[in-house]
Amino acid sequence: MFQNSVVEVELNNLLPASTAIPEKVHHAIRWSIFAGGKRFRPALVIATGETFGAPIEALIKTACAFEMIHTYSLIHDDLPSMDDDDLRRGRPTCHIRFGEATAILAGDALQTLAFRTIAEDEQLEIATRIALISELARAAGTPEGMVAGQGLDMEAEARAVNARELEEIHRRKTGALIVAATRSGAIIGRATDAELKAVTDYASHLGLLFQITDDLLDVTASAEDLGKTPGKDVESRKATYPALYGIEETREAAAKAHRTACESLDRIDRPTTVLREIADFILNRTG
Amino acid sequence: MFQNSVVEVELNNLLPASTAIPEKVHHAIRWSIFAGGKRFRPALVIATGETFGAPIEALIKTACAFEMIHTYSLIHDDLPSMDDDDLRRGRPTCHIRFGEATAILAGDALQTLAFRTIAEDEQLEIATRIALISELARAAGTPEGMVAGQGLDMEAEARAVNARELEEIHRRKTGALIVAATRSGAIIGRATDAELKAVTDYASHLGLLFQITDDLLDVTASAEDLGKTPGKDVESRKATYPALYGIEETREAAAKAHRTACESLDRIDRPTTVLREIADFILNRTG
Repeated sequence: MFQNSVVEVELNNLLPASTAIPEKVHHAIRWSIFAGGKRFRPALVIATGETFGAPIEALIKTACAFEMIHTYSLIHDDLPSMDDDDLRRGRPTCHIRFGEATAILAGDALQTLAFRTIAEDEQLEIATRIALISELARAAGTPEGMVAGQGLDMEAEARAVNARELEEIHRRKTGALIVAATRSGAIIGRATDAELKAVTDYASHLGLLFQITDDLLDVTASAEDLGKTPGKDVESRKATYPALYGIEETREAAAKAHRTACESLDRIDRPTTVLREIADFILNRTG
Repeated sequence: MFQNSVVEVELNNLLPASTAIPEKVHHAIRWSIFAGGKRFRPALVIATGETFGAPIEALIKTACAFEMIHTYSLIHDDLPSMDDDDLRRGRPTCHIRFGEATAILAGDALQTLAFRTIAEDEQLEIATRIALISELARAAGTPEGMVAGQGLDMEAEARAVNARELEEIHRRKTGALIVAATRSGAIIGRATDAELKAVTDYASHLGLLFQITDDLLDVTASAEDLGKTPGKDVESRKATYPALYGIEETREAAAKAHRTACESLDRIDRPTTVLREIADFILNRTG
């Protein structure tokens, strides 16, 4: 759905060539980046930026930076000592294909490249680049961002988690980057403070919706649709929305998150059709 | 030698509190940062910056950012799938103490925090911050930086490496960050292009000197001085200067690197005593 050939072309330009040494690390980076990802975070950067009138040239590199951070997190989360996943998007995970050491380095390098890409984006004023790097770093790091979420998620595997804790985990683990991607598009598009607040609210609920539907898919989808082994959450007794609330109530929570996300957009006097379509797509996604 | 209480205090300020969740990740970060490191890279940032008249307030956060990147690389390099080290600076390595997953996350978070620290350093003009982030990212990443060096080093373990390849590995693995730390101090101090070139040359040779003496110490030092198991390079048949050249010729190479580093400083009409003392210390180091 979100695939955008401009993003694919730019990622290809930004990544080191497979022929550059160390070849194995660069192969691993490209293997993971070009693994059929949905490009959800780049789509959010671009859709939000275009909502506020920014040209694609000013958005594309930041969009790619978010995909790099996301991909680095997938590579590291899949490692044996973390979630121990052999399969992602229907293909062997990075460490299965290239070995653990190379997978760790590929993730490390992608994180570095994300920050470098924004720092060196000459389409953006330097003040904008600094704002974006700060936004991305806060969302990716700890204690408020993605790494903190993964840390909490792992601590939670050992014990029962309540609803509030589950939301705290997901707000950091997946929500923070989704919110930051959306805000980054708005920052590049020079949104007003009120507009930035509105898209932040939109993205918070979208992030929640994303996680809820992710949990639902683990229960209901086939392995073919999912590209990974379904039922894994149940098997690992992982805290999920269906485990806490049951499937029906979880579906209602998804509908509510979708509704609230879209209502946040009502506060913006801009063409928000694409952002609404993204929310619709996440609500109805099958993989 | 390079310990500087200002650096320790600032690192303590910049790192998330141990009491913030996820506590285990934050404990691991602090365990590794406050493990008695020499603070060589912060010392280079500060000494070079002060050489060009920058105040400590303008240098301290960048100095800490370099230490964060360095510490993240040590945590990840020590992992079982990488160099598999149990001991560093006389203490259990991060993954031995906190588990592999937490060690991976602690390293990831430290990398993120390094970039955030520079991006949010209000003592620096935004153009300077962007220049520093680009400098740090190029030195830390691939294909020219530290991750590339670690990748090459691991590929090299499987085969015989010649002198040129060994230098290529070390230039990236340890040299790039040493050069970038030095250049960053000069950038903050608004060095001229000629001065920047001179300190870059100084730092290149200093980086080489650092690696040569590191290899020598592995052969000659006691475990107590080293804080880790000596003889490990020989045991793992790792490419080192003593293995390629023998100890005497390696000592001569160290002396030459030291001399060339100091000669580079002759091109600067500034007080370079501290930078020379750093070179002396590295030449004569015992741990």
